[in-house]
Amino acid sequence: MKKRKGLVIVNTGEGKGKTTAALGVLFRAWGQGFQICVIQFIKAETGRWGEVKAAEKLNIEWYKTGAGFAQTPEEKAEAAAKSREAWGLAQKKIIAGGFDLVILDEFTYPLHYGWLSVEEVLTWLRENKPPDLHLLITGRDAPQALIDYADTVTEMRNIKHAFERGVKAQSGIDF
Amino acid sequence: MKKRKGLVIVNTGEGKGKTTAALGVLFRAWGQGFQICVIQFIKAETGRWGEVKAAEKLNIEWYKTGAGFAQTPEEKAEAAAKSREAWGLAQKKIIAGGFDLVILDEFTYPLHYGWLSVEEVLTWLRENKPPDLHLLITGRDAPQALIDYADTVTEMRNIKHAFERGVKAQSGIDF
Repeated sequence: MKKRKGLVIVNTGEGKGKTTAALGVLFRAWGQGFQICVIQFIKAETGRWGEVKAAEKLNIEWYKTGAGFAQTPEEKAEAAAKSREAWGLAQKKIIAGGFDLVILDEFTYPLHYGWLSVEEVLTWLRENKPPDLHLLITGRDAPQALIDYADTVTEMRNIKHAFERGVKAQSGIDF
Repeated sequence: MKKRKGLVIVNTGEGKGKTTAALGVLFRAWGQGFQICVIQFIKAETGRWGEVKAAEKLNIEWYKTGAGFAQTPEEKAEAAAKSREAWGLAQKKIIAGGFDLVILDEFTYPLHYGWLSVEEVLTWLRENKPPDLHLLITGRDAPQALIDYADTVTEMRNIKHAFERGVKAQSGIDF
């Protein structure tokens, strides 16, 4: 593979489509023969989404580590612990050397909620991310320091969404 | 497949990522076993992008019909003619009945430039699009009538982009 600049890409904003756009990068990267690792920070481990099925068929490494969205203090403590575990896994994959693209899906949530220190995470990335590794982070409320660190930041805004008019989430489109 | 509502989805806005997000939907849909057809209206026929390579490997129907972005009057006339041909192809695929998802990539351009009549296209879609077919349209400057017709519209906005700081387009990420 030619020498390249490993980009740090952030998909953020209030709109739907942050993870979807990351899957588009994954599709393109897979087409170019990239080795890809996806770590999902929030989504529950039990999901049977289209993207998970597709990743299985295509031998893409995929980890669902999250506890779902937390409400009670107990759920929040569990989510915080799981997000720290997941970050440990992400660190291993980032320095492992075998990947061209690592996607940290909904990684902004543990940063936003303070379960992980933004400063510690960014310091670690600055010191340890291989220069040719592409890193893609999704989630709303991306901290400003992460935006400053990133090469490319896209905000997704809903102009309108079928959900708003009572249309249920559709298999193959929304999950 | 269960009865479903075929969504009309539009990815628009000035930012990068409209086609990328459409590829994410494609990836998810492919994982759910959908039959997918992609028609690219503007991109040149000679591209060897990651998404085209991936689509070949996965037996996704993919048509590159465009003439690239037009500058001279001759190029514009050619682009207009090619976009009308491409719309004819899209009509065939939409009514064919075998697809779950049809993606019209950069379809807003021929509408915006008046190479196709927005009113005629929307009238045709209202009368002919199968109710369970998902239709995804990308491109900037989506006409208001198309936004009104769509179920879900997402706008992509660049907060920052590596291109702006002289980083070249990266294989596997940007193409």
